[in-house]
Amino acid sequence: MGRSNIKVDRVFHALGDPTRRAIVERLSDGAVAASALAKPLGITVAAVIQQLQILEKSGLVRTEKTGRVRTCRMEPEGLSVAEQWIGERRSVWEQRFDRLGELLEEE
Amino acid sequence: MGRSNIKVDRVFHALGDPTRRAIVERLSDGAVAASALAKPLGITVAAVIQQLQILEKSGLVRTEKTGRVRTCRMEPEGLSVAEQWIGERRSVWEQRFDRLGELLEEE
Repeated sequence: MGRSNIKVDRVFHALGDPTRRAIVERLSDGAVAASALAKPLGITVAAVIQQLQILEKSGLVRTEKTGRVRTCRMEPEGLSVAEQWIGERRSVWEQRFDRLGELLEEE
Repeated sequence: MGRSNIKVDRVFHALGDPTRRAIVERLSDGAVAASALAKPLGITVAAVIQQLQILEKSGLVRTEKTGRVRTCRMEPEGLSVAEQWIGERRSVWEQRFDRLGELLEEE
């Protein structure tokens, strides 16, 4: 399995969890401290940190610690990996329909 | 958790597995019998059937049994669910950058 395949695995796996998606949804609207994510999600700060690690490894989130505050931001790279994979499948699928259409027109 | 959230879970979870992605990749290029998927993927027909069930539930694949042959096709609905979720995140994120740009220009 190539390196890019592992990356695609990680991104889709990360997005398959509603709590992790809720974190990405929150961060797409602006940077926030990790501790501030816990309450609205109804989970502990420790659980937030655990989910953030998975999101960071998949390139969906970036975190930075300054003093005692860990600031979290959305990282668009992970979304691009998923978009590219989906876009390629759709493109192959649509091209096949175009070819079918041309064949029917030639009849 | 709403119905659409469950659907998004299912689609991303389904796409987080390299074997299931390989099936979707193969099917985006045309319909094929379930039994014909096993050999190139190096898995048993029983394993293919198991993966197809997950893909069907997530709206990524459609299968139809005629006599003894189960034909599999790509179903674009599942891809649309994933594309929509990703697109919304990207859109919110980009709008925020546009607003920041406008604020900086006003300075």
